[in-house]
Amino acid sequence: MTDQYCDDSNIAGVSFSIHPMSDNFINIITEALNEVDTSKVWMKTDDVTTTVRGKLPHVFDVTKAIFIHAAKTGEHVAFQATYSLGCPGDSSGNAYMAEDKEPLNSAQIKDIKQPVAAKFSLYPLGGGNYMDTIYEQIEAMKKHVTVSPAHYSTRLDGESVAIFNGLEHVFQATVNASSSHTVMTVSISANSPSQK
Amino acid sequence: MTDQYCDDSNIAGVSFSIHPMSDNFINIITEALNEVDTSKVWMKTDDVTTTVRGKLPHVFDVTKAIFIHAAKTGEHVAFQATYSLGCPGDSSGNAYMAEDKEPLNSAQIKDIKQPVAAKFSLYPLGGGNYMDTIYEQIEAMKKHVTVSPAHYSTRLDGESVAIFNGLEHVFQATVNASSSHTVMTVSISANSPSQK
Repeated sequence: MTDQYCDDSNIAGVSFSIHPMSDNFINIITEALNEVDTSKVWMKTDDVTTTVRGKLPHVFDVTKAIFIHAAKTGEHVAFQATYSLGCPGDSSGNAYMAEDKEPLNSAQIKDIKQPVAAKFSLYPLGGGNYMDTIYEQIEAMKKHVTVSPAHYSTRLDGESVAIFNGLEHVFQATVNASSSHTVMTVSISANSPSQK
Repeated sequence: MTDQYCDDSNIAGVSFSIHPMSDNFINIITEALNEVDTSKVWMKTDDVTTTVRGKLPHVFDVTKAIFIHAAKTGEHVAFQATYSLGCPGDSSGNAYMAEDKEPLNSAQIKDIKQPVAAKFSLYPLGGGNYMDTIYEQIEAMKKHVTVSPAHYSTRLDGESVAIFNGLEHVFQATVNASSSHTVMTVSISANSPSQK
C-alpha cells in the first residue's frame, strides 16, 4: 500500500520515551542512559521522544535495557514506544547496519526482576498472510507471561525481560511474514500505584 | 486488508496515558479528570492506559481537556495516545453513539495558553487514495502551528488547543478518505526542561 513514511531499507527503529512519575525524573533517565551500551545503534533524543535505529536485535536490546534500568529505581515509570521496520524515511543510522547481532546489554539485565504490565498492538501495513504468524507468537508468549485482551491492543503481565523478548519475537515474526512496513506500539507501566 | 482488531462499527476511540514527571502525579491526574466533563463518552482506566470511546469529536474533546488541565499545572507532562476508528474489537461504549456532537469541554479550555511539542503518525490500514487528503490537512495545520519532519512521524510545535484541533481534523479527513480502519499515534510534551 502507499505509505508516506517508507523506503526499502531494512533498518529497524523505534521512537520511544521514558516517563518516571517523580521529581527526580531527569536523574533517573540520565542514569539509566549511562548504564546502557548504545554503541551498536544510532540514537538521538529531543524534547518529545528518543529515536533509536539499527539492527532489530539492538533496537530491542537498547530500549529494554534503558527501561529496566529506569524501572529498577522503584519509581513509577512508564515506557511508550513505536517500533518500525521497512520505513526509515531517511538514512540516519544506516552505517550501524554493519554491526554484528550480539546484543550488548542483555547479560547485564537478564537477572533483574521487574514485573510490569504492558499493552501492544501490531500494524503490518504491507498486507500479506501474517495473522497465523502473529497468533502463533502470542501463543508462544503465554509460556512466559500472562496474555489477555484489551481495548485496541493485547495486554501482557509478567517480567520485563520476558515481555521485551516476547515483543521482539512477535515483531520479528510479523516482519518476516508481512515483508513490508510493520509498526508495533507498546505501552509499559512499572511500579504503578494503581496496579492490580 | 485483514485486521485482527476490527469490525464495522463507526465508533471512535483512544487508548491514552498522561505522565506528569512529578512526585505529585496522582493529584495532577485526579484533578485534571475532575475538571473534565466525560458524560458523552465511555471511559475506563487501568494501570497501563485509559480507554475513551464515543463519537470522534468527544474523544478528542475529552483527551484534549484532560491533557490541558494536567499541563497547566506547569509540571513536565507527557501525553501518549493511539486514536482509532473503524476498529472497536468489542461493543463497549456503543450506547454513547446516540449523543449529539456538541463538545462539552472546548469552551472551558479554549483560552488556556499551553505551548507544547508533539509528534504524530497516521496509519490508514484500509488502503485507498488518502495521501492527498493527509497532505492537504497538514498544509492547513501550518496556519496554526509549526510543522516539521521527524523520524517516523511529523512534528508539531504550537499551542495545545491548535495542535489538538489540527490532529482531530487530519484524523477525521483520513477516516473520510480511507473508509476503513485508521490509527493515529500522538506523543505530546509540555513544560519539558529540555525543550528548545
